[in-house]
Amino acid sequence: MARAFQVFPIGVIRKSDDDVRIIIYKKYRKGLLGLEQFSHIHVLYWFHQNDIPEKRAVLHVHPCNLKENPLTGVFATHSPMRPNLIALARCKIIAVEDTVIRVDAIDAFDGSPVIDIKSYFPPDDPSGTIRIPHWKRKSD
Amino acid sequence: MARAFQVFPIGVIRKSDDDVRIIIYKKYRKGLLGLEQFSHIHVLYWFHQNDIPEKRAVLHVHPCNLKENPLTGVFATHSPMRPNLIALARCKIIAVEDTVIRVDAIDAFDGSPVIDIKSYFPPDDPSGTIRIPHWKRKSD
Repeated sequence: MARAFQVFPIGVIRKSDDDVRIIIYKKYRKGLLGLEQFSHIHVLYWFHQNDIPEKRAVLHVHPCNLKENPLTGVFATHSPMRPNLIALARCKIIAVEDTVIRVDAIDAFDGSPVIDIKSYFPPDDPSGTIRIPHWKRKSD
Repeated sequence: MARAFQVFPIGVIRKSDDDVRIIIYKKYRKGLLGLEQFSHIHVLYWFHQNDIPEKRAVLHVHPCNLKENPLTGVFATHSPMRPNLIALARCKIIAVEDTVIRVDAIDAFDGSPVIDIKSYFPPDDPSGTIRIPHWKRKSD
């Protein structure tokens, strides 16, 4: 088996009905310098509830858990079941307050471990060229 | 220290002067079903050349390694030095051929381990609202 890489939680997602906060651990505070100059971030978090070998071995899913969607490879989806349980969400920053990033919304569970934050830059090529399959257009 | 998560390479990036290939290991072949219906993917790979504790402890950088750019937290950049060495690249698919995804370009080293592939959907909110700092506008 190939060597595994080690990923350490750098924070945690806290959600309530009217508030979504990305709480970064104090030891990583310096990493946030200048983040408030961006309007958006990519939040990478860990699908921790699926961290068992059986779920990490799943390679085919019905997207959005809808049986009418065709069986699809996990790499063609954003399924929370995949070999490496990395979730990717683009969020709008509401405020950066010390080690807390308040964002507009995130499709994650309260308590999800955060593994990276990246400032968001628009892609270089125009979005007009994007192509997606029929099942994804229905799910929007 | 918080529990570490295990990330396993699912493939490798191969680059030559005129060709960029994401080679997925055969055991993950099923995960690619349907990927050819998308025009773009997010490729997540590992900054393997920086996988030593000293580089993973760096929290401040001059973006793009330019001293004239202000000292910035790594989470406000895409620096290859960061606590978890996850790289994120959006790529245009040229072709999906069995377990090989040919893409237009990627800013990675030949031999970089691939840790996830995600189909790319355009963000829900319009890009017109994106805000980035001065140093990033200069670096484009």
